[in-house]
Amino acid sequence: MSIGKHSAERAPHLGTLPAGPRGTIADVDGVSVGHCTLAEGALQTGVTVIRPHRGDPFVDKVPAAASVINGFGKSIGLVQLDELGTLETPIALTNTFGVGVLAQAQIRAAIRANPRIGREWSTVNPLVFECNDGYLNDIQTLAVAERHFDDAFDAASADVGRGALGAGRGMSCFDLKGGIGTASRVVSAAGRDYTVGALVLANFGRLPMLTIDGTPLGRMLTERAAAAELANAAANAAAHATADKPEQGSIVMIVATDAPLDGRQLKRLSLRAAAGLARSGSVYGHGSGDIALAFSTAYTVPHGADFVALPPLVADHGMDPLFRACADSIEQAIVDALWSAESVTGRDGHRRLSLRDSVPDLTQLLRHAAR
Amino acid sequence: MSIGKHSAERAPHLGTLPAGPRGTIADVDGVSVGHCTLAEGALQTGVTVIRPHRGDPFVDKVPAAASVINGFGKSIGLVQLDELGTLETPIALTNTFGVGVLAQAQIRAAIRANPRIGREWSTVNPLVFECNDGYLNDIQTLAVAERHFDDAFDAASADVGRGALGAGRGMSCFDLKGGIGTASRVVSAAGRDYTVGALVLANFGRLPMLTIDGTPLGRMLTERAAAAELANAAANAAAHATADKPEQGSIVMIVATDAPLDGRQLKRLSLRAAAGLARSGSVYGHGSGDIALAFSTAYTVPHGADFVALPPLVADHGMDPLFRACADSIEQAIVDALWSAESVTGRDGHRRLSLRDSVPDLTQLLRHAAR
Amino acid sequence: MSIGKHSAERAPHLGTLPAGPRGTIADVDGVSVGHCTLAEGALQTGVTVIRPHRGDPFVDKVPAAASVINGFGKSIGLVQLDELGTLETPIALTNTFGVGVLAQAQIRAAIRANPRIGREWSTVNPLVFECNDGYLNDIQTLAVAERHFDDAFDAASADVGRGALGAGRGMSCFDLKGGIGTASRVVSAAGRDYTVGALVLANFGRLPMLTIDGTPLGRMLTERAAAAELANAAANAAAHATADKPEQGSIVMIVATDAPLDGRQLKRLSLRAAAGLARSGSVYGHGSGDIALAFSTAYTVPHGADFVALPPLVADHGMDPLFRACADSIEQAIVDALWSAESVTGRDGHRRLSLRDSVPDLTQLLRHAAR
Amino acid sequence: MSIGKHSAERAPHLGTLPAGPRGTIADVDGVSVGHCTLAEGALQTGVTVIRPHRGDPFVDKVPAAASVINGFGKSIGLVQLDELGTLETPIALTNTFGVGVLAQAQIRAAIRANPRIGREWSTVNPLVFECNDGYLNDIQTLAVAERHFDDAFDAASADVGRGALGAGRGMSCFDLKGGIGTASRVVSAAGRDYTVGALVLANFGRLPMLTIDGTPLGRMLTERAAAAELANAAANAAAHATADKPEQGSIVMIVATDAPLDGRQLKRLSLRAAAGLARSGSVYGHGSGDIALAFSTAYTVPHGADFVALPPLVADHGMDPLFRACADSIEQAIVDALWSAESVTGRDGHRRLSLRDSVPDLTQLLRHAAR
Repeated sequence: MSIGKHSAERAPHLGTLPAGPRGTIADVDGVSVGHCTLAEGALQTGVTVIRPHRGDPFVDKVPAAASVINGFGKSIGLVQLDELGTLETPIALTNTFGVGVLAQAQIRAAIRANPRIGREWSTVNPLVFECNDGYLNDIQTLAVAERHFDDAFDAASADVGRGALGAGRGMSCFDLKGGIGTASRVVSAAGRDYTVGALVLANFGRLPMLTIDGTPLGRMLTERAAAAELANAAANAAAHATADKPEQGSIVMIVATDAPLDGRQLKRLSLRAAAGLARSGSVYGHGSGDIALAFSTAYTVPHGADFVALPPLVADHGMDPLFRACADSIEQAIVDALWSAESVTGRDGHRRLSLRDSVPDLTQLLRHAAR
Repeated sequence: MSIGKHSAERAPHLGTLPAGPRGTIADVDGVSVGHCTLAEGALQTGVTVIRPHRGDPFVDKVPAAASVINGFGKSIGLVQLDELGTLETPIALTNTFGVGVLAQAQIRAAIRANPRIGREWSTVNPLVFECNDGYLNDIQTLAVAERHFDDAFDAASADVGRGALGAGRGMSCFDLKGGIGTASRVVSAAGRDYTVGALVLANFGRLPMLTIDGTPLGRMLTERAAAAELANAAANAAAHATADKPEQGSIVMIVATDAPLDGRQLKRLSLRAAAGLARSGSVYGHGSGDIALAFSTAYTVPHGADFVALPPLVADHGMDPLFRACADSIEQAIVDALWSAESVTGRDGHRRLSLRDSVPDLTQLLRHAAR
Repeated sequence: MSIGKHSAERAPHLGTLPAGPRGTIADVDGVSVGHCTLAEGALQTGVTVIRPHRGDPFVDKVPAAASVINGFGKSIGLVQLDELGTLETPIALTNTFGVGVLAQAQIRAAIRANPRIGREWSTVNPLVFECNDGYLNDIQTLAVAERHFDDAFDAASADVGRGALGAGRGMSCFDLKGGIGTASRVVSAAGRDYTVGALVLANFGRLPMLTIDGTPLGRMLTERAAAAELANAAANAAAHATADKPEQGSIVMIVATDAPLDGRQLKRLSLRAAAGLARSGSVYGHGSGDIALAFSTAYTVPHGADFVALPPLVADHGMDPLFRACADSIEQAIVDALWSAESVTGRDGHRRLSLRDSVPDLTQLLRHAAR
Repeated sequence: MSIGKHSAERAPHLGTLPAGPRGTIADVDGVSVGHCTLAEGALQTGVTVIRPHRGDPFVDKVPAAASVINGFGKSIGLVQLDELGTLETPIALTNTFGVGVLAQAQIRAAIRANPRIGREWSTVNPLVFECNDGYLNDIQTLAVAERHFDDAFDAASADVGRGALGAGRGMSCFDLKGGIGTASRVVSAAGRDYTVGALVLANFGRLPMLTIDGTPLGRMLTERAAAAELANAAANAAAHATADKPEQGSIVMIVATDAPLDGRQLKRLSLRAAAGLARSGSVYGHGSGDIALAFSTAYTVPHGADFVALPPLVADHGMDPLFRACADSIEQAIVDALWSAESVTGRDGHRRLSLRDSVPDLTQLLRHAAR
């Protein structure tokens, strides 16, 4: 089985802003991503690690901020990040019951790299986000182990895998197969070009709400299924997915940029992920932990320095292009997750069809819709 | 001149949830709205008042909460509302430089009704929101006066006027004429029917971003205008509205519901306005004060009572239908504002075309787009 | 009548950190304060204006942030300040029902200085704080007028008046006469000397809770009064001020520093005002709007600049001396307000005794208590 | 060695409000506390568990809210608690590097009790707080294991142990031995009696700032030590604890009450812990994670119920006595932690003297100070 193989065919480009050369979060220079995938029977889960730069983020902390759009989530690390405006470990993603384990793994890795942590130095703030992959994955087994963090960390590269792999292995999205999606946009702000990249762990939404590029695809599929008397698998999914059933799952949205912004500005930027998410059909459902984090690679905050020297920051009134790039990247990354994920069968025979397995005439539907 | 006359033809219904009988915020029983419109030459502004119930909100306070989506705004009253989870005056809307005047008017009206305020009793927390109508209105004249609040208050009824009237008189939206829009949706939550109503003061966005029902209308118009070599007025608007120019203006989004919710839950509900707003094309631009307030009419909090008796509250996990209703109502109310507003000429000959004056084939474009 | 005459005798110095040369907020270079006092019969109120630097804060915006410790308050301006981390008008203080009027005055003054505001430029965010002086002042008369703002602004100087003047004229504190207090501390952070200055508008607390320099003075006075069978005025005040009666009033706490800090850091600094406030005996009572704002004079953010160049910022881990200086300055400023205020008689014959008129043996009590 | 033995002699009662019969958090009916202590050589740490009621908090969720006073902390669980206003596991306290392990332990315990969690039901939100005990404890060994949570949970009783035990085993406070402290107060609000109980994990502050009952004990000891040329152990501690050295450690403050309050009100209540903390001398130092959580036992929120029935809530304007009780309980609980803790020697021979070992004439100093 070739887990998480990339499809050659990418999703259609959304909006009018250009993507970066890779079309991934790694278009922001220095950012790399690694996955560790667990895929065997009822075990369909994994770990994804995002390294904000090539160095040690404890030594060279990264300006960052988060927006909790809907706080039905179990992450660790946001309290300190909100206070200090920096992150000091890689960003780890996994299933809901793996957060504690990855926190320990982050701590151990930080101590290995910096043996003074917790002795002469202060402690370290591990940053771990999660979604609940319990439909496909037997989450009760608590299968994620510390070594999976290390494996994902070691695998980090600028060639970003997407789809049903890493933390995305067992995720569902709009009653279809979800997972890891990524995208980027390049914009000009205050006369300079900046890149905004996004990576999402997409695990939210019910089919009737699915919207792609403004096309109410979920509604179309639901209606088609009703008309066809539930003749195929997609229809079955749709049939069971009345909009009245609550959203479960969550989405973690990571936004990277090389624009020089401080913590307060990054909080503003991160909130624009909510606009991209809404375009996909989400209303930030009660049971969905919808959290966005934005970081900048334009400078670092050295551990222990007496003073922090910042480059000139983009003025707030120049941030609109970055806001658009954030919303577009997130919207694109969600579609990318749906587009890239293969169909997966997991615990108790639960199966999530990929968007493209589920809707053979997908391109036509979207083209038709988009004129 | 018949200011703010209603068009007989309403905007198309968005989404799958049914509207209430009026299709306005007044579908939430007890809610009424009044306008006072100033429209003479360079003076194109006004006041809109929303009364949450038929009584005195100082005596019977109303559970309420707000979400500041983008805080480039000059409202008054949110600090206390956030602390106590109630509002105690009507909600007043006006232009940016009228906030202070309306605050005084609210105070005076509250004292008239309750002469013990500021003596035996504590003071009163006036609640006033604003958008900047400076393109059409000569905002520097500070023309809004206290009596305009009283006039709007006295005019409040369940027959809600919409379009270029009241506080919406001078507002612009997507480089077109904006103003007051309203909508409602009826949903079933936890086995009971509830109504969610919305009223917006829409004054945000640049034309290229305008999206209606998923159709990228602004992009279509911009491209058409470019092709037609700027042959008509809409094209001219579009030509000057590159997406690089910052958003200015703002949107105030008022959400009413008869569902029994407490302050914390109303804060959750109010945030879903951000999803409806995003569907219109907004990314919560830097210069746009995007603020949502939600209140419930299911109970009141009596002034001075020792204990507050609440009805059984909808459980949080049952709120998803209300979240959808909020997002849909806001999206619909924004389209309603564009659809209802007439073209207006104001200061220095500045002119905003209405959406329908600007796009004669609007219905066809949307029908075509939507199949 | 010599309103607000300074007493030659200052309150005892609290804590171990040294004060600046003036012992006022004006020890932070460039900061000036002006008062306009209304004192005639039932009218005991006024306006205080703090100018953060000698220039125009709309043109050269000032990094700033606020902490709402208890949000029972009616200020205007905090929404945008929180979003953007800057203030762009002087800080105005007045009574609760004067906020709207001073907002209008701030707008008019900003337009006078910058006629492009609200036309080519965006609007301006007026910043006004308030406390309720309704015990001494007939607040229902809405006597504060726009010209009082201008008078206070014009009177601004580095020679800071304190006591029962300006916005402090009618304020009560611990059932005694409150008003304007100010203080400063000089500390070394990251190897350099910085000044922290505070100015408070003190209008909170019931007598039994009053604590000065750790001495439970309020409890001592209450007990003495009980013992003396209510023999004197202080006793009468105490007798009517059981701790069960709710706190009313509020405190506005303005913190200035020349340390280079950004908005996020200033928010951290402002919160330490809560520690100084607690030392005075406050528990942030329900009815007390307790708000702290901190600003830095180390740099400005020019209006319209594409990029914002910051000086090297004090690292967060170096902020502890600034935190202590903030808490100590606020504690000292509260005592200063009590110490400086003269006794005042206002509406309906209501009278507030000054601390020193009320407790003739005050110094002895404190000396005794403090050994 | 009898770890954590209670001293028969309690700290002096602070303030004028009466304590409950036990003088602990367990005066709030139904609340119980258990400890698991690890004390061997370089290993000086442990786990403390607070059960909010006798049942299963996942099935019967507990209204709760938190205030992050200074967010230099690594807790887990606050994001969801803030969104939903309830807690659904016991509250676990441990050292900074044990958070992940206890999160896993909480998850496993919740699944044992409710096997549908993560399958038919949503997941569970583990709640774990921490302080850094790295001075006495070799925190890098990551010695806390899941079974220690179970042991502490099983040991929970209404007979609350205090001092150098459980999570408090290795904690330091004002350069002295810190740990677990607890207290309670009984007040009348809106005509009924309510109990407020507090439990703190105290691990903050430098000696010169220590204040007890208004007496600047830390300053007195520091000055004495300087005078005595560092003649004894307390002096040595003081000598090394210049106020310029940053605060490290943290304090976790848990507040329980039987007053009927909702999540918003409990957030207000929790913030008053900041007042009690300030009275001890803290200014919420940069490196101190100062977090307060308040919960009510007056009702529960049943898992899965469609509607939530609340008892009549204490009106906000009646909360002042609860605010005072919170501040007094926290102040008392901090003194209790210092008073109850025995001297402990840990890793690398590091030793923390107890307050009473360090200051043999403590009672006299306080009596002298307090007259």
